[in-house]
Amino acid sequence: MNYHVLTLFPEMIEQGLNTSILGRAREKDLITLQTINIRDFSENKHLKVDDYPYGGGAGMVMQAGPVYKAYEHVKNQIATEKPLRVIYLTPQGKVFTQAMAEEFAMEQDLVFLCGHYEGIDERVLEKIVTDNVSIGDYVLTGGELPSMVMMDAISRLVPGVLNNDVSAEIESFHDNLLEYPQYTRPEEFMGEKVPDVLLSGHHANIEKWRREQSILRTVQRRPDLLEGANLTDKEKRLMKEMLSEGV
Amino acid sequence: MNYHVLTLFPEMIEQGLNTSILGRAREKDLITLQTINIRDFSENKHLKVDDYPYGGGAGMVMQAGPVYKAYEHVKNQIATEKPLRVIYLTPQGKVFTQAMAEEFAMEQDLVFLCGHYEGIDERVLEKIVTDNVSIGDYVLTGGELPSMVMMDAISRLVPGVLNNDVSAEIESFHDNLLEYPQYTRPEEFMGEKVPDVLLSGHHANIEKWRREQSILRTVQRRPDLLEGANLTDKEKRLMKEMLSEGV
Repeated sequence: MNYHVLTLFPEMIEQGLNTSILGRAREKDLITLQTINIRDFSENKHLKVDDYPYGGGAGMVMQAGPVYKAYEHVKNQIATEKPLRVIYLTPQGKVFTQAMAEEFAMEQDLVFLCGHYEGIDERVLEKIVTDNVSIGDYVLTGGELPSMVMMDAISRLVPGVLNNDVSAEIESFHDNLLEYPQYTRPEEFMGEKVPDVLLSGHHANIEKWRREQSILRTVQRRPDLLEGANLTDKEKRLMKEMLSEGV
Repeated sequence: MNYHVLTLFPEMIEQGLNTSILGRAREKDLITLQTINIRDFSENKHLKVDDYPYGGGAGMVMQAGPVYKAYEHVKNQIATEKPLRVIYLTPQGKVFTQAMAEEFAMEQDLVFLCGHYEGIDERVLEKIVTDNVSIGDYVLTGGELPSMVMMDAISRLVPGVLNNDVSAEIESFHDNLLEYPQYTRPEEFMGEKVPDVLLSGHHANIEKWRREQSILRTVQRRPDLLEGANLTDKEKRLMKEMLSEGV
C-alpha cells in the first residue's frame, strides 16, 4: 500500500505515522508514505497558495493551480492502469466507516488531498477528486489529522501490518456489536476482581459471556448499531429483555 | 484550555499539535498541552504496561495499575472544584459531534486517555473515565490520533484561537447544512470560470446562491442531516423539487 499525501504540513504527517504499528509497517515496507508539499507548487514568488474567496466571506481559500500541479507531480510517478483514487478530506464528504476502510485497503495507491483554511477552490476538486470523505460530523483546522486517521484505519487491514491477523477480525464492529470488556493481571485491582468466568478456563462459557457483554454494551451505548447485528432468536429475546428493563 | 494526555506515545501527540493554528494557539498560551507517558508508571522492571487478556484471545491488554497512577499524577496537579472530565477514546464510546466539541470547549481542563493494543483493563476505566468517546465507526491502532482530532475540533472553539471568529461560526454543520463551494483567483482555471453571481458584487444574490448550494449539496451528499435543518417553507419546496428530480 502506497500513500501519497498532498498537504501544506508534510512534517505533521511524517511524524504522526512514524510510531508504533505504522512505524514498524513502514520499516518493513508493507506501507510506504510520500508527502508532497503543495507550497512547492506555488505560482507566486512569496510562495502563497491561498487567496480571498470570490463573493466575500471570512477566511482564505486554497488556489486551484498549486493543488493541481502537486497532483500531476504525484500522478506522473504512479504506474497504474486503474483509475487513481484521490481522497479529499472534507466535512462535506461521505462519512468514513470500517467498510470503507476495507474497500480502500484493496487499492495499491491512495492519494490524500488535505485542505486548510476555508477549503480549496471547487474547480480543482471537480477535476481531480474521486472520493470526498469526512471522518465525522465535526469541524477540524485541516485535512491532515483526518488523512492520518484514514491511513491508520486502512493500514491495519493491510496483510502483515498487525502481528496477529485475528486481532483485526474479532473486535469492534465485528457483526455490528461493540467489543466486550477486557481484563488482565492482577486478578484484583483496588478491590475489584476479574469476573470469575474469565478465570474458569471453560471456553464455551467464556465465549457466551463475552457475546452477552457485547450485546449488553451495544444496547446500552449504541442501540443504533443493533439493527445490522446478526443475532440468534435467543439473543434477540435477551436483547428485548434488556431494553424493557431499561438497562 | 489545558489538555492532559495519558499515552504511550507522547512524542506523537506533541508533534501533531505543533503546526499551524494549534501551534500558534500554544505559543500564545491560549491552549496548553501536557503529555504523560503511562510507561513511566509501570510497576515492572522491564517497564511493561500490558499483559495477556484473562479468558484468552488475541492481543495484549493495558494493565490497570500504570494507567491509574498516571491519572493520579495528573489529577494532583489540577486545582479544580469541578469534577475532572476524563475522556477515554474507544470505538465503544459515544460518537463525537460538533455539539460535543462545543460542550467540551467550555471546560478548563480535559484529560484524554489513549489506549493501545486490545484496550485497557475495564476496572480502571470504570474508576476514572467520565466520557467514553469514539470519533467514528472505524477501528484505529490506538487512541492518539482520535485524541488529537478531538483537541483540534475543541481548540478551534476556544476564543482567540481562530483569527476570525466568524470562521468558526459560518461553516459546515451550521444549521445542519453542508458548506457551499468556494472559489478564489484566478477567474478562469483550465477553462472553468467562477460562477458569475460571485463576481456580481450583489450581496443578497450571493447569499441566496450560497444558501441554495448548501441545500443542494446536503440533499446530494448527506440527506440524513436535512431533518435537523432549519429551512423556510420556500426552501423546503425547493428541496422537495431537488429530491423528486433525483439530483
